[in-house]
Amino acid sequence: MGEFELIQRHFVPLAKHFSGSLNLSDDAAIVNIPSGYDLVVTTDAISEAVHFIGTEDPALIARKLLRTNLSDLAGMGAAPLCYFLSIALPSPLSEDYIARFASGLAHDQALFSIHLAGGDTITTKGSPTFSMTAHGLVPSGTALRRSGAKPGDIVYVSGTLGDAALGLHAIQKSGFGTHAYLEDRYLLPQPRLLLGEQLRGMATSCMDISDGLLQDMGHICATSGVGADIHREKLPLSAEAHSMLTISPELWPLIYSGGDDYELLFTLPPHVAPIAGTTCIGHITDGNKVRLANVGKEIPVTRSGYSHG
Amino acid sequence: MGEFELIQRHFVPLAKHFSGSLNLSDDAAIVNIPSGYDLVVTTDAISEAVHFIGTEDPALIARKLLRTNLSDLAGMGAAPLCYFLSIALPSPLSEDYIARFASGLAHDQALFSIHLAGGDTITTKGSPTFSMTAHGLVPSGTALRRSGAKPGDIVYVSGTLGDAALGLHAIQKSGFGTHAYLEDRYLLPQPRLLLGEQLRGMATSCMDISDGLLQDMGHICATSGVGADIHREKLPLSAEAHSMLTISPELWPLIYSGGDDYELLFTLPPHVAPIAGTTCIGHITDGNKVRLANVGKEIPVTRSGYSHG
Repeated sequence: MGEFELIQRHFVPLAKHFSGSLNLSDDAAIVNIPSGYDLVVTTDAISEAVHFIGTEDPALIARKLLRTNLSDLAGMGAAPLCYFLSIALPSPLSEDYIARFASGLAHDQALFSIHLAGGDTITTKGSPTFSMTAHGLVPSGTALRRSGAKPGDIVYVSGTLGDAALGLHAIQKSGFGTHAYLEDRYLLPQPRLLLGEQLRGMATSCMDISDGLLQDMGHICATSGVGADIHREKLPLSAEAHSMLTISPELWPLIYSGGDDYELLFTLPPHVAPIAGTTCIGHITDGNKVRLANVGKEIPVTRSGYSHG
Repeated sequence: MGEFELIQRHFVPLAKHFSGSLNLSDDAAIVNIPSGYDLVVTTDAISEAVHFIGTEDPALIARKLLRTNLSDLAGMGAAPLCYFLSIALPSPLSEDYIARFASGLAHDQALFSIHLAGGDTITTKGSPTFSMTAHGLVPSGTALRRSGAKPGDIVYVSGTLGDAALGLHAIQKSGFGTHAYLEDRYLLPQPRLLLGEQLRGMATSCMDISDGLLQDMGHICATSGVGADIHREKLPLSAEAHSMLTISPELWPLIYSGGDDYELLFTLPPHVAPIAGTTCIGHITDGNKVRLANVGKEIPVTRSGYSHG
């Protein structure tokens, strides 16, 4: 089966409800942006043996790729619209792999109201590598940014921290199946799209945590020109993380420096009431360091960026 | 030098004139679409040893990637706006490679009035692989499509055909430097952006030729539900192609089936005057085959697509 037939069979169905995809049969897609909205666009790439293990079900690889992009949209307060997908696989293209990958996308497209609008499927002499560019919408001028945090603002995170990093640690140490909840948090992040939309017009800064709490707090601080004091004892932990840390306290750094949380990190002015499902973990300072109290860890803030993720 | 520093040094300068890039320092870019315009979006991916040789200057690889995306925008009649770039390179990231790659982008950004708006730079255990998603604008409802060709319409192409395929043939046979003009046509396509914009409201169908004339004519015919008669003796040849074919007539199929032309293939109603720099090569029929007269070649038309390229 050739590339065209694989695409007709497995990808065109993912695009059929987005008319601008032109059924993936033209040079490009046509995306109509309703008046009064800004388009929010993010790109993430992943490669086997670096960003995923390679033994996962391809459906899970696809779902995680889509969800990490959706998490970036959540970090900007955007509602999902459509996505573009580049797939590079060894030759000959495996229909089974592509069918599983597409089935994962189909599952999560329905869950998150987003559609495939275009892409490219190529062969590579190297490892499976994927890139996704996701589009979302926000009412004009309301996109959440990293740049507005002010001294005195309260720092919040959604959900719990460190589960994904502990899950990956468990998989690498003992294989799949020993810590199902934590492994699932690594394999299938939960993009906080509704929270992101709720934070429009409220949060002074916001981003999704992908590189670990402290590093991403550093990104907000660098962009906003502030510092932050974070309290280790306030960091929200799942019951499973708490139980693993009780046995192995040396894993604590994974809570604040491990990656793949895909929770939202945001700041609210001190007079704004907290939001259900989120936890206050510290406050913004007029310094230029992210300090982790109770651990004595200090991270200088420097400007850095680009990954849009 | 880490990923962040590489990005600050080599990619942020490519984004500084596009305010929606947020200096590549946020979760995503914010793209403002002027009222009355549609957004046109295309994605192309390339991998070493499949889509480029690997011994090219990385600046040329970058420029060709950008230009093939621009060619897709030209095929839709869109004016360039911004692009998103995924770069997957072996670890450790080579600053020299990235610097050359970015310098190629800088050169062509200025030439074609387009800006970097976001992206992701990752390491891979495999070969260098790149993906680009380019955004363009057309006045609402005026994007060129593959689907409007009607029996009796005249088929045109821009420029000359087969140069890139002959250039690649020359490189593979004798290395670089024996046929400079043809090699250059392979390495650096010329996206026909102005022609694409000119064709809005005139062409009944249009696309850029990337898979070879006959295959791409087949795409227009499949999407439009028509056939086409193409005349081999009308196909426009460069002096260099003509001279190579005189010596090696067995290379003729590269003219109509070789890839990488990146010329525009389009149809005009019979009463519309031809456009300078384009050549009439045949006409649309009510059949379901692309016929190449003088060669007796017939290609049945079947629906296929997805690559948006």
